[in-house]
Amino acid sequence: MLHLYTDSSPNGFKATIALEEMSLPYRLHHVRIETGDNRKPDFLALNPHGRIPVLVDDETQVVLFESAAILLYLAEQTGQLLPADIQGRWETIKWLQFHASSVGPIIGQRVHFELAETVPNPAAIEHYRRLTERAFAVLDRQLAQNRYLAGNTYSIADIANFGWTHIARIIHFDFSHHLHLSGWHERVADRPAVRRGTTLPAPATGA
Amino acid sequence: MLHLYTDSSPNGFKATIALEEMSLPYRLHHVRIETGDNRKPDFLALNPHGRIPVLVDDETQVVLFESAAILLYLAEQTGQLLPADIQGRWETIKWLQFHASSVGPIIGQRVHFELAETVPNPAAIEHYRRLTERAFAVLDRQLAQNRYLAGNTYSIADIANFGWTHIARIIHFDFSHHLHLSGWHERVADRPAVRRGTTLPAPATGA
Repeated sequence: MLHLYTDSSPNGFKATIALEEMSLPYRLHHVRIETGDNRKPDFLALNPHGRIPVLVDDETQVVLFESAAILLYLAEQTGQLLPADIQGRWETIKWLQFHASSVGPIIGQRVHFELAETVPNPAAIEHYRRLTERAFAVLDRQLAQNRYLAGNTYSIADIANFGWTHIARIIHFDFSHHLHLSGWHERVADRPAVRRGTTLPAPATGA
Repeated sequence: MLHLYTDSSPNGFKATIALEEMSLPYRLHHVRIETGDNRKPDFLALNPHGRIPVLVDDETQVVLFESAAILLYLAEQTGQLLPADIQGRWETIKWLQFHASSVGPIIGQRVHFELAETVPNPAAIEHYRRLTERAFAVLDRQLAQNRYLAGNTYSIADIANFGWTHIARIIHFDFSHHLHLSGWHERVADRPAVRRGTTLPAPATGA
């Protein structure tokens, strides 16, 4: 049995979307960050960084944190959403990693300075607006030439990046002027598994 | 033939260290960021994000950016520095991803606010000091129980995280109070391939 420890968040939704897309049976454990569940010893034993999501696979005894590692694991274990040919495989992993280092952490820091900091920091806000705009532009350029990020096929690279465009849309980080990115976002958002995945364990409120 | 497009930087050194550790023949292309080589059309055709390192494998026609993707590719192609058993494989990828999302981007942003910004931003500096300290603490805790990040064996997870502790040391982001992390850093730094890798294409100056 797969166990997913998660909360309603961009990083969490990547895992729930992937599990729903792959039609895998799993048990959902709601780790309520708001009430500090992620700082409790039981959870820190799974991830010393105290972040969701965490995946535990009873069968293989693998315990994983970091959403990109979880996506790659699920894809490799099931043979789904990751092309088997060498070109397709590495194109997918390249855009998965672009998300992991150059999209997620940047949007995440913009969220921090725009929404979480109580003292306004205009210079930091401006810095992260510039960097997110640059990341959106790179994604847009890739999607001008490809239906999905790694080519013609929907993959874990799309799920990973969608986790962040989904929250960007909710909290009004505007990327609508990037028409290809915007069109891709709508296509992904329309998938039934994505609609389910973004409500588990609860829909994002943007709060 | 493998081609590595790189400059003297934390992300670049991960690739040169891995290539040196694996004793792979490769051609080094020096992309001088200082003079804007990374914004030229030839380079942007390889990586639209304009960042180093980029790896091109003539044989497979794979073109990769993002250092974690490059490390994983080299490890899988050669069967080196990534355990073959399922537990070892995913322990390694987990800590590779921890580096990719939770170490590199955070230290990178701290570098920006402490060294690159001309107008001091004490709140942002304090924020990134707190986050890097938290990342160092997680690494230290893991290294208290394991000789290397993914267990008893040196792997691409060590190379990835070392890329950042190497620059942290040079620019005086202090982690010496984390004794296990500090000891691990010394062990890795002492490896001949690491000593070579961190001079290619030139040693870091911290400037």
